[in-house]
Amino acid sequence: MQHGRYPTAQLLQIHDQCFLIDCGEGTQDRLKHYTNRWFKINFIFISHLHGDHYFGLIGLLTTYNLLKRTDRLTIYGPPELEKIIQIQLDVSATKLNYPLYFISTEDKQLNKLLDTNSVEVYSFPLDHKIPTTGFLFKEKKYKRRLNIDKIIKLDINNKKYKLLQDGLDIEDEYGNPYKNEDLTFEPKPARKYAFCSDTKYNESIIPYIENVDVLYHEATFMEDAKKRAEETKHSTAIDAATIAQKANAKKLYIGHYSSRYKDLEPLLQEAKSIFEATYLSYEGLTISI
Amino acid sequence: MQHGRYPTAQLLQIHDQCFLIDCGEGTQDRLKHYTNRWFKINFIFISHLHGDHYFGLIGLLTTYNLLKRTDRLTIYGPPELEKIIQIQLDVSATKLNYPLYFISTEDKQLNKLLDTNSVEVYSFPLDHKIPTTGFLFKEKKYKRRLNIDKIIKLDINNKKYKLLQDGLDIEDEYGNPYKNEDLTFEPKPARKYAFCSDTKYNESIIPYIENVDVLYHEATFMEDAKKRAEETKHSTAIDAATIAQKANAKKLYIGHYSSRYKDLEPLLQEAKSIFEATYLSYEGLTISI
Repeated sequence: MQHGRYPTAQLLQIHDQCFLIDCGEGTQDRLKHYTNRWFKINFIFISHLHGDHYFGLIGLLTTYNLLKRTDRLTIYGPPELEKIIQIQLDVSATKLNYPLYFISTEDKQLNKLLDTNSVEVYSFPLDHKIPTTGFLFKEKKYKRRLNIDKIIKLDINNKKYKLLQDGLDIEDEYGNPYKNEDLTFEPKPARKYAFCSDTKYNESIIPYIENVDVLYHEATFMEDAKKRAEETKHSTAIDAATIAQKANAKKLYIGHYSSRYKDLEPLLQEAKSIFEATYLSYEGLTISI
Repeated sequence: MQHGRYPTAQLLQIHDQCFLIDCGEGTQDRLKHYTNRWFKINFIFISHLHGDHYFGLIGLLTTYNLLKRTDRLTIYGPPELEKIIQIQLDVSATKLNYPLYFISTEDKQLNKLLDTNSVEVYSFPLDHKIPTTGFLFKEKKYKRRLNIDKIIKLDINNKKYKLLQDGLDIEDEYGNPYKNEDLTFEPKPARKYAFCSDTKYNESIIPYIENVDVLYHEATFMEDAKKRAEETKHSTAIDAATIAQKANAKKLYIGHYSSRYKDLEPLLQEAKSIFEATYLSYEGLTISI
């Protein structure tokens, strides 16, 4: 497998909502190529202001405008991002057709950025050359699933269903009590995804990302370039795998490979030596969590 | 022929020098794809600050830096461009390895921007929604070509060659006079290229671009969208062709087509009805002037 040409951007879909994480140059072009959902992105998260993570943002914003977007768009990122975007809109005399909001991230502690019906999003500090945050996407707890067969047999009024789904015990219309666990099943487990790019090896992030279903963690270098990783505040494949293991992640996707590695297999093997459930991310990859 | 996906950028090579004209998002990617000369660009000209003409600049500059460029780079463009680039270098704590100079253009009259051994470059005002300039590249006059057969027969000392190339009459070592035109041929004609994007129909540019060998002129719309062209201060194919004809250009290349035109042939035909030597520009096209 060859290292792809495009900088960082990930499109995360949770139920009906689409979240864009980072937006390197050419992201709009890649989005148009890979998905028809790119117009549904209402939230964009920028980890830090190195160009390979945000140079494509201004282009995406102005393309939305050309295409007559009217839906509100909210961008989470370092405080200077708003100024950078605003000056570029100003000099081109661009007045956006859609409401654009900036919410500043900061890299000192865990912060809740967003809380919707289905998901909570948090930023947390990474350790890179400039202020950088990771992002944690936590699906909200699902409701308990009704044991329909039993409920029908017992002739429970459907007005009680919501109480059961919320985990409450009920009485039927004759006053007979029922324990919730007798009429419902465990809910589908809520999923968690964490995005960590760019960062040096940093165990202090572990509490934030514990037990995630999928961890994306940068793995810019292999062990042969450990010194270079330290100098540039990036991680090695072993670093990423160690974090995944200590955080008890279910799966690890690595990425952000240095262009020095044409063949990524050795990089993958280094990570797998520590954490077996490691996978390579690459351009156009779609995964289900 | 299909309308390509990429915004404006042109690489102009004159003798050993490479000039980049405009730099839309993805330009660095296209440059790497189409040419190995992109590292030789020492001068970049930005016509105006609409994103499709400059959003790729910051990415190209930082990629040069990552790849350890040390050669000086000079950028000509509207005054705000320097600030836009500088803020993005600042927030990423990027210290460039190479000297980067900005020279502001202005859109009030013809200005000479650059004068090298082989070429002069001028900016001139276009008429668009925001301050915009065109660029004129004038090859310097070639020296006269020696009539080697005659010169050898007459046994003219080679110390006189330079005088002959410069158009002077000479004497040989016995004092015999020779007219320059008897010993030299007319020089190769010096070539001119003009770049006009984006602009509405504007006859006041004609004096600047008269007799160019190649005129690139935007032709965003066809006659069916003449009103839209006026509103957006763009040109139609007929507009571009009329300018080419009145300026006595040898060839016209049109471009910057609205994405509404999937098939560009009708656009070309409209232009050719006024100016026969019209050609379509498209992604990856290389022409010799």
